[in-house]
Amino acid sequence: MFRHTKHLQFEAKPEKPDALYAMKLQELIGGAYGEMTVTMQYLFQGWNCRMEGKYKDLIMDVATEEIGHVEMLATMVARLLEGAPSEVTADAVKDPVVAAVVGGMNPQQAIVSGGGPVPADSAGTPWNGKYIVASGNLLADFHANVAAEAQGRLQTARLYNMTDDPGVKAMLKFNLARDTVHQNMWLAAIEELKEDGLEDTVAPDALFDEEDQTHSNTIWGLSDGTEAARGRWAHRPAPDGRHELRYLDNPEPLGGPASAPPPDPALYATSDGRPGEGSAKGAAAAPGTSMTDKIKKSLE
Amino acid sequence: MFRHTKHLQFEAKPEKPDALYAMKLQELIGGAYGEMTVTMQYLFQGWNCRMEGKYKDLIMDVATEEIGHVEMLATMVARLLEGAPSEVTADAVKDPVVAAVVGGMNPQQAIVSGGGPVPADSAGTPWNGKYIVASGNLLADFHANVAAEAQGRLQTARLYNMTDDPGVKAMLKFNLARDTVHQNMWLAAIEELKEDGLEDTVAPDALFDEEDQTHSNTIWGLSDGTEAARGRWAHRPAPDGRHELRYLDNPEPLGGPASAPPPDPALYATSDGRPGEGSAKGAAAAPGTSMTDKIKKSLE
Amino acid sequence: MFRHTKHLQFEAKPEKPDALYAMKLQELIGGAYGEMTVTMQYLFQGWNCRMEGKYKDLIMDVATEEIGHVEMLATMVARLLEGAPSEVTADAVKDPVVAAVVGGMNPQQAIVSGGGPVPADSAGTPWNGKYIVASGNLLADFHANVAAEAQGRLQTARLYNMTDDPGVKAMLKFNLARDTVHQNMWLAAIEELKEDGLEDTVAPDALFDEEDQTHSNTIWGLSDGTEAARGRWAHRPAPDGRHELRYLDNPEPLGGPASAPPPDPALYATSDGRPGEGSAKGAAAAPGTSMTDKIKKSLE
Amino acid sequence: MFRHTKHLQFEAKPEKPDALYAMKLQELIGGAYGEMTVTMQYLFQGWNCRMEGKYKDLIMDVATEEIGHVEMLATMVARLLEGAPSEVTADAVKDPVVAAVVGGMNPQQAIVSGGGPVPADSAGTPWNGKYIVASGNLLADFHANVAAEAQGRLQTARLYNMTDDPGVKAMLKFNLARDTVHQNMWLAAIEELKEDGLEDTVAPDALFDEEDQTHSNTIWGLSDGTEAARGRWAHRPAPDGRHELRYLDNPEPLGGPASAPPPDPALYATSDGRPGEGSAKGAAAAPGTSMTDKIKKSLE
Amino acid sequence: MFRHTKHLQFEAKPEKPDALYAMKLQELIGGAYGEMTVTMQYLFQGWNCRMEGKYKDLIMDVATEEIGHVEMLATMVARLLEGAPSEVTADAVKDPVVAAVVGGMNPQQAIVSGGGPVPADSAGTPWNGKYIVASGNLLADFHANVAAEAQGRLQTARLYNMTDDPGVKAMLKFNLARDTVHQNMWLAAIEELKEDGLEDTVAPDALFDEEDQTHSNTIWGLSDGTEAARGRWAHRPAPDGRHELRYLDNPEPLGGPASAPPPDPALYATSDGRPGEGSAKGAAAAPGTSMTDKIKKSLE
Amino acid sequence: MFRHTKHLQFEAKPEKPDALYAMKLQELIGGAYGEMTVTMQYLFQGWNCRMEGKYKDLIMDVATEEIGHVEMLATMVARLLEGAPSEVTADAVKDPVVAAVVGGMNPQQAIVSGGGPVPADSAGTPWNGKYIVASGNLLADFHANVAAEAQGRLQTARLYNMTDDPGVKAMLKFNLARDTVHQNMWLAAIEELKEDGLEDTVAPDALFDEEDQTHSNTIWGLSDGTEAARGRWAHRPAPDGRHELRYLDNPEPLGGPASAPPPDPALYATSDGRPGEGSAKGAAAAPGTSMTDKIKKSLE
Repeated sequence: MFRHTKHLQFEAKPEKPDALYAMKLQELIGGAYGEMTVTMQYLFQGWNCRMEGKYKDLIMDVATEEIGHVEMLATMVARLLEGAPSEVTADAVKDPVVAAVVGGMNPQQAIVSGGGPVPADSAGTPWNGKYIVASGNLLADFHANVAAEAQGRLQTARLYNMTDDPGVKAMLKFNLARDTVHQNMWLAAIEELKEDGLEDTVAPDALFDEEDQTHSNTIWGLSDGTEAARGRWAHRPAPDGRHELRYLDNPEPLGGPASAPPPDPALYATSDGRPGEGSAKGAAAAPGTSMTDKIKKSLE
Repeated sequence: MFRHTKHLQFEAKPEKPDALYAMKLQELIGGAYGEMTVTMQYLFQGWNCRMEGKYKDLIMDVATEEIGHVEMLATMVARLLEGAPSEVTADAVKDPVVAAVVGGMNPQQAIVSGGGPVPADSAGTPWNGKYIVASGNLLADFHANVAAEAQGRLQTARLYNMTDDPGVKAMLKFNLARDTVHQNMWLAAIEELKEDGLEDTVAPDALFDEEDQTHSNTIWGLSDGTEAARGRWAHRPAPDGRHELRYLDNPEPLGGPASAPPPDPALYATSDGRPGEGSAKGAAAAPGTSMTDKIKKSLE
Repeated sequence: MFRHTKHLQFEAKPEKPDALYAMKLQELIGGAYGEMTVTMQYLFQGWNCRMEGKYKDLIMDVATEEIGHVEMLATMVARLLEGAPSEVTADAVKDPVVAAVVGGMNPQQAIVSGGGPVPADSAGTPWNGKYIVASGNLLADFHANVAAEAQGRLQTARLYNMTDDPGVKAMLKFNLARDTVHQNMWLAAIEELKEDGLEDTVAPDALFDEEDQTHSNTIWGLSDGTEAARGRWAHRPAPDGRHELRYLDNPEPLGGPASAPPPDPALYATSDGRPGEGSAKGAAAAPGTSMTDKIKKSLE
Repeated sequence: MFRHTKHLQFEAKPEKPDALYAMKLQELIGGAYGEMTVTMQYLFQGWNCRMEGKYKDLIMDVATEEIGHVEMLATMVARLLEGAPSEVTADAVKDPVVAAVVGGMNPQQAIVSGGGPVPADSAGTPWNGKYIVASGNLLADFHANVAAEAQGRLQTARLYNMTDDPGVKAMLKFNLARDTVHQNMWLAAIEELKEDGLEDTVAPDALFDEEDQTHSNTIWGLSDGTEAARGRWAHRPAPDGRHELRYLDNPEPLGGPASAPPPDPALYATSDGRPGEGSAKGAAAAPGTSMTDKIKKSLE
Repeated sequence: MFRHTKHLQFEAKPEKPDALYAMKLQELIGGAYGEMTVTMQYLFQGWNCRMEGKYKDLIMDVATEEIGHVEMLATMVARLLEGAPSEVTADAVKDPVVAAVVGGMNPQQAIVSGGGPVPADSAGTPWNGKYIVASGNLLADFHANVAAEAQGRLQTARLYNMTDDPGVKAMLKFNLARDTVHQNMWLAAIEELKEDGLEDTVAPDALFDEEDQTHSNTIWGLSDGTEAARGRWAHRPAPDGRHELRYLDNPEPLGGPASAPPPDPALYATSDGRPGEGSAKGAAAAPGTSMTDKIKKSLE
Repeated sequence: MFRHTKHLQFEAKPEKPDALYAMKLQELIGGAYGEMTVTMQYLFQGWNCRMEGKYKDLIMDVATEEIGHVEMLATMVARLLEGAPSEVTADAVKDPVVAAVVGGMNPQQAIVSGGGPVPADSAGTPWNGKYIVASGNLLADFHANVAAEAQGRLQTARLYNMTDDPGVKAMLKFNLARDTVHQNMWLAAIEELKEDGLEDTVAPDALFDEEDQTHSNTIWGLSDGTEAARGRWAHRPAPDGRHELRYLDNPEPLGGPASAPPPDPALYATSDGRPGEGSAKGAAAAPGTSMTDKIKKSLE
């Protein structure tokens, strides 16, 4: 269960309104790497965590903080939109300064939300649930968290250069600091997972037994240029300590032709009537066999 | 420019058709972490790369390989669908075995694609461009690549356990091996970026000067439980070597109240007419001021 | 079955073209509360209506009118786009007036639709089927209809203030009037449903018997501030006449810890091997039990 | 800023796992009227609220509660998925009971989230930001909130009938009660807004002055059947007390033909070269006029 | 403006309910090539048509018919869902026949629409506005219409084979006939556009003057295999009567390296500081130049 | 399997950067008819092709070429964005020229991709998998391919008129030429499919036997105006040589009323308790019958 205090985690007060910047700042609210994403990503990871204790507590601490980050940004956007030109008509557009601001605004911040933020990014695309990942595997997910913080931090730094409003810059400096903490923290947690012997599923011994060892060391050179072979990565042990990466120049394919099996007549796929290749070995019950028989046969 | 050979990178031939598994395998084609994602992610990263040489070559090598992985999986799905029950009527559903298979299939693999794969995931959600990231910043993007390979590898491992078809398992073992190489490779490239002195934008000195140092070390304990404070992460230097993470138990907010500025009458937002708080300092031209004046004032 | 007359329900003729306004007006065509939404919402409600007679007739009357509203707006947008700058090049952008208009236009109205409307909103997001609701329950759906008309009317009023073209304003005044009728009409139909004794499923006796009466009166005060307790809503009978709302200040949670059950090893979720909490009481067949046995057990 | 306690607002413990039901329950997490929707809808309404005091406090109280409802449902889904058949192969499908369960499951709850919930609905469609509304106008938004609670309550009631697990039913009874409170509360708040004289923007005097009074009373009979004319709604004052609804049988259109203006040659729209109708009155600068001149002319 | 009659264009009455088939039939309602698509595609084409007369009339005739096709299918789906198992619990699933049907149903047809159709396809993906095309160019759009009718007809034929209900089959036979008419009609209209001399924009002389004639005849052989060179298409005049297609075996690229320009430091893209290639000829104002100067320079 | 050469298929070098045009050109990358669409459409058609030989080879040749077209456009966009105003602040916006460019840019090309292309269209909508079609039926798909090339060519021609940069125009002239080849080629392949006797599924004899011959010739005149009856299409044989199209003026519906069956009480759909019409003939097991019995009955 959650509780809310009216105070923002950090101040979010611009010096002056700036409707164009309000549109850009939407990227940090509803973008693929915005605060709605890290909020929901960490919440679902926490709720789906299969171990009580420090990892779950850490995830829930940060998840709860991130809801407050959406709040800070939403508040900042509403304040940046104060007095934004909501009544500008074609006549006013004759003034190029007015026109420029009007042209670049997100019209939905006026028409739809009445001067407030929308749950969308800087191009107006609505946030969606596919932006988040919560796989139940902490090592895989903590790598995703590092990646999310890195992209979020990069976008924040870019946006920092797009304003000179001291109030906005102060908040973004706080956000940059929080992203730094979280990025460091997820990296530290990856190390700790390994030290605690819990890393087994992303680079697990069990999976190594299954994977095809012949092909787990080679970088296939399928694009012109041989610079990739000169990277030090191709001449020393791989980071997992279990493989030796090496570069294959211009390798040949290992499989047969990419062909599809003969079509089912009831699906009206184009065919010349010749027996097709590309069938499963145990496929193709004789034509005329009843569907039920075919399914049962395929289950034998 | 690209060229294509008819042969698959690796064989993709199931022992027998399996329409239920064909639906599940869609996750590796059109899922958020499927092969369409890594194909497009690496292509856009390569095309957007601002340095000629080993990094760009490496990205384009792997991007080109991944197109071939979509091809392998698309071929496998078509073969798994061979003879799938496309004509089963309500009458046939009386046979529970038939019904079970029919019930679990993805109907679009019959109705829409005529017995082939669809560019969608295992729940039928179409692939979309927001799944990929190509920021122009290699360090941030290589972390995203590690995360994508980790999730893809994890999903492949889960799918490996959901079949006992030797042909399918052989291909998945190859895929697992390739994911291992690529994961190792991106991790190695992250190290090499740092050794080459090119990591400056995700953890850059410049940004450290800007970020708010007061808040770049603290883990805010906003969820009950103190286990997070007991992680070793809170008691030793952070992975970037420049911070010392520590745990803040039950911290207080630093900002003022989360309030929105007074509404523009033309937007018909609800208001009690009292002067609102939460304005930008330089906001609020006097009511009655013309829009043009307001905009110009906000630009002063 | 439907029939079409070439005449618009009401005139849709702007005084002059205005490409910027054409972009904004898209909100009323393909926005979440635009005319495509009410068209499809009312059509699906009518087709799904389980009672012949006045309610179904009313829904189909309005649904049919709304198709004509999409037609009016689509016509207006095409006319507002007449002569819009489709050939403006970088050279022309040097003229700031031209540039302002070009910058703010929706480029797809030129590139994709050749000077006509697109089935999207003012931010370019395409209309989608999730915008509508047709639950089969008229009381629930009529409340959704009131809400849709209210938002549509509000957006129309905002857009009314963003133009001074008399032709556009005349059409919007007609639209505002129609929204007023429809809003009143759905409110009246809600009353009539109750008078006719057909309201049972949104506030039904049957459901009251099921719902947990202990918790059907309390407003949980989970956010700072006690103003919510001072609303008159917390001191008099609830609108349904069956409950007495009251305010709970700072209530405690009633449930156990939010924990997830122990992981299935085949899914590679991170675990420390300790028996987890959070299991269903009847869960967890012994490890080693066959899958079939586990499923059958769970069905016992 | 937010805080989190580990305890659930109410218990969420099923008697036994039920993977089919776990798929259905996703509707209440990530559906258009699920708990993610009301969480985000109320948060954005609260952050965008332009009046301090009881209304804002109420919104934030409920918003904060709803985050905890997502938590309860996410926990319930994880527990319902305990021991779900993650390794079932084609061989096991021969057992029809196993096959039935496998066929109906959401495969992403295994492959993607490792036995946990996904931020999607019962058909696997990911949640998106367009599900919410926060217009800044409390009266319009409270009507939307009533509608959302009504649909959510209806779906919960339907789901209540699809299980006989006492643990699941206990939680749903709590949820039904909370929906009842919230529905009553938003209805009460609508009344209070009117009593407080704050309803002016949905049914405002200002807008009535603008809207076309000739057309603000008539129900247009555009679908066969005259039952709609017999509703009491067509024979008494409208709910807003300012209109008298009446039924127009088979009305004629009021506008001119629905025609589009002549095409711009640079857009290659099909035309027979005849001067088109449907132009704006002030449109159509002479052909040959420069683009800049045309734009400037349209702004005159 | 539109009118509605209560009678269906053709009867839509199944012999018996069939909940599994109701899910599949959604493809023809809300699929990419379903009736919602052709309805909206033809409506937007008609409203955007720049010529009065036979073409526009034809488009509006068919558009109006298609709304009635959505109505027929929506009615059929509601009837197929009659008595569908809405209360089946885990206990009932023990009966494999029940379980099979339950497993394969679209749960939203019960939970969301209360036994009616949803505006989505057979995989539950909601319909969206990007499915339609209305470019203003009749020749291009009529080709799109042929393609839409062809896919719709193919899917209808596939669905025809998936049922043996005589009522359903009767309706699908009517639908197949209508698709045949419409396909023929759009093909005939393409011919008539050419005879009327209105085809100029898809294969126009004007565009031929612009396009690069060196490359408008060659099929580039970029995939292994030379069968494509043996098609008769490579040995006779092209269908437009103006080109001679021929096959280029293993052609070489014509452009320079695919490289991106040097990064802007404010965007933190990775760079080694070496002057990049891939710049526009007139790019790259000297570093240190003010932004305003850079923009102005790029407009010179 | 695929291979990549560093050289572009054709040069993609603008004379000068142009950030506004870079936004528009996104339509050809990630639009519904952009190069990502034809790439994926042809790849999935090729992989799903059920005949070895000239058709499959042709599809794979073009598919492989199209990946290179995405590369050309992605490179062009990055170069057009060189030096784009990434640091422009509110202060700089006072210069109207700067403001105009800033207002019209796609902010994600800076914030998200760091000066490169995004996998989205000119309105910022991300590409998605529903844009493509690969049905397994070559005749239906080749018609879709003609339509896609026609729309792509039309959009390219429109974009050609929106720039006067010689480098951009040179590349677009090449693209127009390639679209011409491909359009001709798919039209030729349609003819060849018919000559080869492989056209059976879109206009098949088998399907003609099934379709309702009474209704396969008539154009229903459901929209006012009789011009459609005067088209030559209504007075001569249909293009398939098997039908005679004719115009039905103001036809009457053939079906019964559009009514839905009686509701299932467990779904809480509104009903007046009167026995409903619109049932399937074999529907409606007696109330009280167990669900299992009802399902079994419906399968009898």
